[in-house]
Amino acid sequence: MLELMKRDGLARICELTTAHGKLETPVLLPVINPRNITIPPRELYESFRFRGLITNSYIIRNDEALRTKALSRGVHELLDFPGTIMTDSGTFQSHMYGEVEVSNSEIVAFQRDIGTDIGTVLDIFTEPDWSRGRTSEAVDVTLERTREATALKGKMMLAGVVQGSVYPDLREGCARSMADMAVDVHPIGGVVPLMETYRFADLVDIIIASKKGLNPSRPVHLFGAGHPMVFALAILLGCDMFDSASYAKFARDDRLMFENGTHHLADLKGLNCECPACRMHTLESLKELPDQERMQTLARHNLHVSKREIERAKSALLEGTLWELVEMRCRAHPALLDGLRRLKEHKQFLERYEPLSREGSFFYTGPESLDRPCVFRYERRHFERYEKPPQKILVGFQEGQKPYGRAYGPEIARISKSADAHFLVMSPFGPVPIELDELYPIAQSLFPRLNDRETLERTNELMERFAHLQEYGISVIYDGERTEEVLAALSDGPSTFDVDLARVKAVCDYQFGGGAGNMLMNGQVSLVKSKTTGKIRNVLVDGAHVLSMRAGDGFFSLRPEGAGRLLQGMPSPKLRVIVNPDSVEFNRQGKNVFSNFVIDCDPQLVPMDEVMVVDENDALVAIGRMILVRDELVAFKKGLAVKVREGVASQPLARTT
Amino acid sequence: MLELMKRDGLARICELTTAHGKLETPVLLPVINPRNITIPPRELYESFRFRGLITNSYIIRNDEALRTKALSRGVHELLDFPGTIMTDSGTFQSHMYGEVEVSNSEIVAFQRDIGTDIGTVLDIFTEPDWSRGRTSEAVDVTLERTREATALKGKMMLAGVVQGSVYPDLREGCARSMADMAVDVHPIGGVVPLMETYRFADLVDIIIASKKGLNPSRPVHLFGAGHPMVFALAILLGCDMFDSASYAKFARDDRLMFENGTHHLADLKGLNCECPACRMHTLESLKELPDQERMQTLARHNLHVSKREIERAKSALLEGTLWELVEMRCRAHPALLDGLRRLKEHKQFLERYEPLSREGSFFYTGPESLDRPCVFRYERRHFERYEKPPQKILVGFQEGQKPYGRAYGPEIARISKSADAHFLVMSPFGPVPIELDELYPIAQSLFPRLNDRETLERTNELMERFAHLQEYGISVIYDGERTEEVLAALSDGPSTFDVDLARVKAVCDYQFGGGAGNMLMNGQVSLVKSKTTGKIRNVLVDGAHVLSMRAGDGFFSLRPEGAGRLLQGMPSPKLRVIVNPDSVEFNRQGKNVFSNFVIDCDPQLVPMDEVMVVDENDALVAIGRMILVRDELVAFKKGLAVKVREGVASQPLARTT
Repeated sequence: MLELMKRDGLARICELTTAHGKLETPVLLPVINPRNITIPPRELYESFRFRGLITNSYIIRNDEALRTKALSRGVHELLDFPGTIMTDSGTFQSHMYGEVEVSNSEIVAFQRDIGTDIGTVLDIFTEPDWSRGRTSEAVDVTLERTREATALKGKMMLAGVVQGSVYPDLREGCARSMADMAVDVHPIGGVVPLMETYRFADLVDIIIASKKGLNPSRPVHLFGAGHPMVFALAILLGCDMFDSASYAKFARDDRLMFENGTHHLADLKGLNCECPACRMHTLESLKELPDQERMQTLARHNLHVSKREIERAKSALLEGTLWELVEMRCRAHPALLDGLRRLKEHKQFLERYEPLSREGSFFYTGPESLDRPCVFRYERRHFERYEKPPQKILVGFQEGQKPYGRAYGPEIARISKSADAHFLVMSPFGPVPIELDELYPIAQSLFPRLNDRETLERTNELMERFAHLQEYGISVIYDGERTEEVLAALSDGPSTFDVDLARVKAVCDYQFGGGAGNMLMNGQVSLVKSKTTGKIRNVLVDGAHVLSMRAGDGFFSLRPEGAGRLLQGMPSPKLRVIVNPDSVEFNRQGKNVFSNFVIDCDPQLVPMDEVMVVDENDALVAIGRMILVRDELVAFKKGLAVKVREGVASQPLARTT
Repeated sequence: MLELMKRDGLARICELTTAHGKLETPVLLPVINPRNITIPPRELYESFRFRGLITNSYIIRNDEALRTKALSRGVHELLDFPGTIMTDSGTFQSHMYGEVEVSNSEIVAFQRDIGTDIGTVLDIFTEPDWSRGRTSEAVDVTLERTREATALKGKMMLAGVVQGSVYPDLREGCARSMADMAVDVHPIGGVVPLMETYRFADLVDIIIASKKGLNPSRPVHLFGAGHPMVFALAILLGCDMFDSASYAKFARDDRLMFENGTHHLADLKGLNCECPACRMHTLESLKELPDQERMQTLARHNLHVSKREIERAKSALLEGTLWELVEMRCRAHPALLDGLRRLKEHKQFLERYEPLSREGSFFYTGPESLDRPCVFRYERRHFERYEKPPQKILVGFQEGQKPYGRAYGPEIARISKSADAHFLVMSPFGPVPIELDELYPIAQSLFPRLNDRETLERTNELMERFAHLQEYGISVIYDGERTEEVLAALSDGPSTFDVDLARVKAVCDYQFGGGAGNMLMNGQVSLVKSKTTGKIRNVLVDGAHVLSMRAGDGFFSLRPEGAGRLLQGMPSPKLRVIVNPDSVEFNRQGKNVFSNFVIDCDPQLVPMDEVMVVDENDALVAIGRMILVRDELVAFKKGLAVKVREGVASQPLARTT
């Protein structure tokens, strides 16, 4: 059973409950070779605090002593590990040596009988060089065996492996078929040869294809991914579990893993590592250790670095800086950069899970930053939802003229505060109408002054598309050299109320959908502004408090009065989460909505969206922020769905107007 | 006295000898406020192993108790620090508070009298917003005071501060004037306000302007640079010393420094730090420490992280990966990326110090990688020195078609092995003739398959320029889709000897200058090739061994026979280091050349160049590799100038032909 605790896009921190305790994901399971143990499992548990490991049931089964002990005392006692044990089935051995002498039913039953927490189907390892036809047939066999295994698994959790070689449609099809079976964990298999040859762009395609097909309430395990270089990227794409034999294999070759690559001990010119294994050593003392001790020390180093990298990615997720971390990590090797650049092809899928806003600022790290889904979100919503106001249009250029921190500076903001002229700022996000300039990620972004060619061309292309779409006649070009001219072209009237109203409308349309502004602002609008910043805080219509603007991300929080207007104006299930009767009273008291109480919701809602919680009769029950998207809401049997900010007593406003 | 130990471009590892021991640079000097000590100097020395610190003589002088003790027992006993102590003069106080009540001669004499190892002139802090005129006047005062101080310094080493606000020519002029004075260390001053406002592009201009003017045998200290974010970049540009008060200041604000930025303790979601200060703590336990203890713990953390970052940059220098490290670090903030991008404007200067080759591979990290001086070096030498061969020209495209690791793959190499056709490969470095395809950095580079727009456009521009320059008629366009066509267009004769000869000539011209190929190959040429790789190993002319090709970087090592030919063909001092008579016999025995024995050398030589060591009569004494460039050779009074590979007995070949 998986419960989502925190998320950022596809990336997530979850709790996986197993028969031997809980795992907080993303998690790395060290691989233990039961015939050749590098680091004792007890040390992994107690000193490293690993709560899970993976071992190989095929090896145990083929060794008489191990088999006998595993069957009589269980695999946990065999390995002396009290945490979660996952076992592989022999599939990797079939990849390495061509064949294995065991049937699927035998090895699944064996895993169950030795008390494995998570046992794995004997899937067919689909090699990257296989034809489509051969791959498709192999996937069918894997699906068949998975079905067979579900009947045998007993109380053991079952890992059903997504296969399909490098064919994304076969991967997605395989994943989708398994989503309907009684499977608990989904390894993505057959990817080791791709990682060994640094084919990270293909890896990205495969992970995303698998995620598209899978049931989002089950953990995804990237089988054989054990290098800290790839963890951040894989976590960004929603991988929850990793396993690593590399820590030991690399150590045997005198190689040290780091989050930026691998270094052979002989090539290092300094040991700049403070991990518990290295801190007692200088580079020289490490080199002089006896073979076995050096190998173990390097293996411990590799595990520490790997574990720390997962912890760092988790922290970045929580701090809202995971994209920045991934973009930084992918500079470590040009092949990883190819993987990063491949994300561009998947931005529509990624945008489905992209939160409305996040806490961290948007830091540009290179042209790739503009392919993040939050940029695509802005581009799409701006083109789809924004309506051109009646005023004259002026265009300003951000590039090179203003200090860091804002897409443009106070000067442009000042000259735009006129009802006669409407200001459009050229930014790396494309054209930004002045009404949207406080929205995430526009105002929360940092770019270099000097942009790369890709960014400049992108800006120009977006401007052309926008001008064409909106049938704009551009009146004045502001290029940083002609401030006075622009200022003279503007009547700098003192009244900015019309501009403020245009902002409220534009943000409403952007956030809630086209037409939302008119619904919410129908009547006599008045604004409460912050005395310190002069920014809009509250929107009142006919004296009732309808919306509050958030200083952090520039979006609105809905008030019950506003929710009533949207309920009336927008057909169900738009902007709604519909809860079952058992939940209604709790939510009216301001308690959160849990996924098992949800009947349905608007499929367009994204994480962190403002959402109206309603009962089956469309009566308003509460207002809150969305945690899950619809697919997840349907799939998760446990956990938070909507973080309620305000419960609404019965006889809600929507019914009384 | 400074001695250069290792270098990569402007970056260098040196040993600075002071009255209280040696400092290995790059080095960070923690700032000690003598009235408010955060971490005791004894702990800095013994536990952190800092061998130097900086404190403020103005503060000591203004505090009666401190002054009395400093004058009677010396500043080392005052602070209980046995290592090198540098003192500042009060200039920073004048920047902060407008004025100081001391004269230059008083504070210089005071520093001398308290036994400071490195004392600082009371320079004028030139603020970034100052006019050119005001700055220029202030620089004159600083120069005047520096001259005054040289007369007062006694045995104290003197720090003469380069000022000049944001005016590169004033900075360079100030530096050049000081280069003639008896100054020992050169802080670059007045940069704190630039770093505080993240104006890293201006900082780059200032550092480079200062380096241009300064005497290269004196250490350069970036005054007030104490954030690990900037260390790698500043080290790349040749800064040797840093000082940091930030470790304590930031700690007082509950801020932790990392090489990728600063985090407030309250914003952190995880403490992913294994430094000796943090390793005993969880994030929670750190937050719960009493104020004073928490502050000290964070200060220790900040020092550990800073020290480790300097160590890491040193290791990267030694491993040949400093550019990659800098490009990675500069992704941490868009303003740093602006600093990185500014290097493009200085590539001609940087290329003067760029080694012929380095051990590490060239890893592309983004479009900025193509502005590295090694790329500019290839572009320049290729355009200036390469001669088009008589064969038909074919053009191949690298982009997107071949695996990582080589600019192009074995297939193109194979089809080019024909004397009838000459192959030119399009790569991110521009067009690469097949004869140059094994040279650093071409063959030692890794690029993504999918290049960014900037790189693609650059490739095309270079190709156009090249085709025009060489008056090429391009016969066949090979685009990866038409391999068969290209293969058919080529007569794939078995003899590749002409192609091999073309390679030898092209590499000679590229490495030693135009005409070198003809000089070296004049006669009956035969080649010895590797049996395993089929690559050229030795070049014999008229039976004599003239050149050996290095497998690592594709360049030639000179043999005495070859050197003789170059001595005859090229006028002195081309490719030569001229040593004085005291050195000749040592070098003939194969011993290295030290800078104090050098009379002159070819100003065009770059680090790692093959060089002929000759006596005053132009007789060959030895062959080796260049460590210093000419400016450095003249300036350094100590240390290695040429690493001799082979001494040559008297009666050298050049004289006998």
